Amino acid sequence: MKRNRIRGPWDFEHELTGGRQKLILGLDGGTTDTVCICMPITPFTPNHNPLEAPPVYARAVAGCSNHNSVGETAARETLEQVMAEALLKSGSTRSSVRAVCLAVSGVNHPTDQQRILDWLRDIFPSDVEFFVENDAVAALASGTMGKLHGCVLIAGTGTIAYGYTEDGREARASGAGPILGDWGSGYGIAAKALTAVIRAYDGRGPQTMLTCSMLHELQLSSPDELIGFNSPYLNLNGIARWTYADPSWARIATLVPVVVSCAEAGDQVANDILLHAVQELASSVKAVVHRLGLCGKDGKDTFPLVMVGGILEANRRWDIGKEVISCIANDFPGTHPIRPKVEPAVGAALLAWNYLIEQAQLDQSDGDYV
Amino acid sequence: MKRNRIRGPWDFEHELTGGRQKLILGLDGGTTDTVCICMPITPFTPNHNPLEAPPVYARAVAGCSNHNSVGETAARETLEQVMAEALLKSGSTRSSVRAVCLAVSGVNHPTDQQRILDWLRDIFPSDVEFFVENDAVAALASGTMGKLHGCVLIAGTGTIAYGYTEDGREARASGAGPILGDWGSGYGIAAKALTAVIRAYDGRGPQTMLTCSMLHELQLSSPDELIGFNSPYLNLNGIARWTYADPSWARIATLVPVVVSCAEAGDQVANDILLHAVQELASSVKAVVHRLGLCGKDGKDTFPLVMVGGILEANRRWDIGKEVISCIANDFPGTHPIRPKVEPAVGAALLAWNYLIEQAQLDQSDGDYV
Repeated sequence: MKRNRIRGPWDFEHELTGGRQKLILGLDGGTTDTVCICMPITPFTPNHNPLEAPPVYARAVAGCSNHNSVGETAARETLEQVMAEALLKSGSTRSSVRAVCLAVSGVNHPTDQQRILDWLRDIFPSDVEFFVENDAVAALASGTMGKLHGCVLIAGTGTIAYGYTEDGREARASGAGPILGDWGSGYGIAAKALTAVIRAYDGRGPQTMLTCSMLHELQLSSPDELIGFNSPYLNLNGIARWTYADPSWARIATLVPVVVSCAEAGDQVANDILLHAVQELASSVKAVVHRLGLCGKDGKDTFPLVMVGGILEANRRWDIGKEVISCIANDFPGTHPIRPKVEPAVGAALLAWNYLIEQAQLDQSDGDYV
Repeated sequence: MKRNRIRGPWDFEHELTGGRQKLILGLDGGTTDTVCICMPITPFTPNHNPLEAPPVYARAVAGCSNHNSVGETAARETLEQVMAEALLKSGSTRSSVRAVCLAVSGVNHPTDQQRILDWLRDIFPSDVEFFVENDAVAALASGTMGKLHGCVLIAGTGTIAYGYTEDGREARASGAGPILGDWGSGYGIAAKALTAVIRAYDGRGPQTMLTCSMLHELQLSSPDELIGFNSPYLNLNGIARWTYADPSWARIATLVPVVVSCAEAGDQVANDILLHAVQELASSVKAVVHRLGLCGKDGKDTFPLVMVGGILEANRRWDIGKEVISCIANDFPGTHPIRPKVEPAVGAALLAWNYLIEQAQLDQSDGDYV
């Protein structure tokens, strides 16, 4: 029998009798790590408060599980390992699992979904429900308590807006990476600020406080060092220094706090960069809301807008997230902004949980009619 | 004696008696290939026409000689090989060489210059004059017949503006690569056009003819394929398709003709992208002219503006180069645009030639005073 096969990650199951409490596994596989949480299925009651999540029993963290980054074999090993660890920590075995929701980056195309579903069916007992989504869906669900309705705006190193209607339509905007104009992202903001430093230096743009602050932050003595020691012309294809020494966009995005500080100190150039980022982020959400009709025919329907990622966090005087919300609410007064209180892995579990509750409600009402 | 050492590339010299005609070697080492030309020193006459270049005796081509790209040993081998080949083709030996002007990308810093000078002194007889410059200088000299005065605007895959005053001051603008906002470059224009396609597709921007034309050119069926099959969110760090499949900026820049065609056909989005590029290219030149005071105190002095590179070539109805000139001439009526008739390697030789003529004139006037 499949469930009794001896597999490395599941050896611990021989030592356990297994709990009677049924569980949901929620996985969030981002680009840097993979989180798996284990949540009990609380008995359904008619007075269930849909805004209250069950407690998390156990949590396990592993590395990247994006099959495009690490390859399919390594991605599966990571996913299996992190699920086994979460179950072990909660003192349960696979026989307690009622549903698994796996939300990983790199999964969007139906063929990706199907491959992962087949693989999950091979690991778990046959009565387990599976949900395979991309990680933006988990971020949305983390704000809507598992309901796939509304829009999520993610803005960290990159940015994407992702929306879902109650009847299953979906749309996205941005998320096309740095070459294709994700200007509201952390990368986009910092790249614009570095450009402003170069422009001030070579006389194309106004002087800005960013020059001093960026050089200080990067411990460089001249904007020349941002480009390279050598012929500027060389840099078009040759070796250059700070900016081109490492192709990681995340590294450039770490400079966003410098831009925010300069804007807070009254620097006009930094301020304009942030205002532009706000417009860009808002336009991604507006495009998704408009295409899906989340705002209703009169444009005033209420819809959740889940805000996720470092760029949108309200921890500064110059609050990018707040400005984005106000810009969107101008067009769509029904915007209901939500900053999630739980992490995306919990969002993934809630997605499965929400589905099970709906099924239970349907079964119950079916029963009423019989 | 140094000049009699037996070295591989110079073995041919044993077969030659050497011509009596003195020569200049001009080298242009770009990012893809290295060109060396061999030019005779015509006897100096008081009626010498400074706009007429001596004929080219021989021309040799080799690969990249940027020491940052291929390493110092390989760069030197390439440079020595190409100089030997040009001399061999002209039927001369090193004893005929009066001057060498080496303009290669990757050479800007005084320490780079000194290293190359020392190395050249080791190869050539002790009475040879050496000039070591970066390749932007050769481009300028190719338009000014060797005189280091004025501004050169280079716009191909990348872009840079480079200026030189008669008293030896220099300045540059742009040339900072794609991350740092060289928006007037071929890369910049094409990246903006690809972004416009994505924005039209996800609803953030207006519809544009660029969508159809770009997809046709790239043989793709949907803008999604520009980004990737997979989760859009993934693309921030994962594998993506066309745009991110190859990090070469030159590959993206090849799409510029598509943008020009769309603009010529009346597409507003494409037109705006080109207008923006014109502003950016003009602003680089204006910054250099302003910083060096090439326009004089009243802003009306005449100065040469040498225009080089595929983006500035006047081969279309929508003529980017012409628009850039008119934009610069608005601010600086003394702008004298020049499209070089000779290649940069000849420019490099002319730079040495010009220096030798000035020396000869000085010697002659010294003689007059004695």
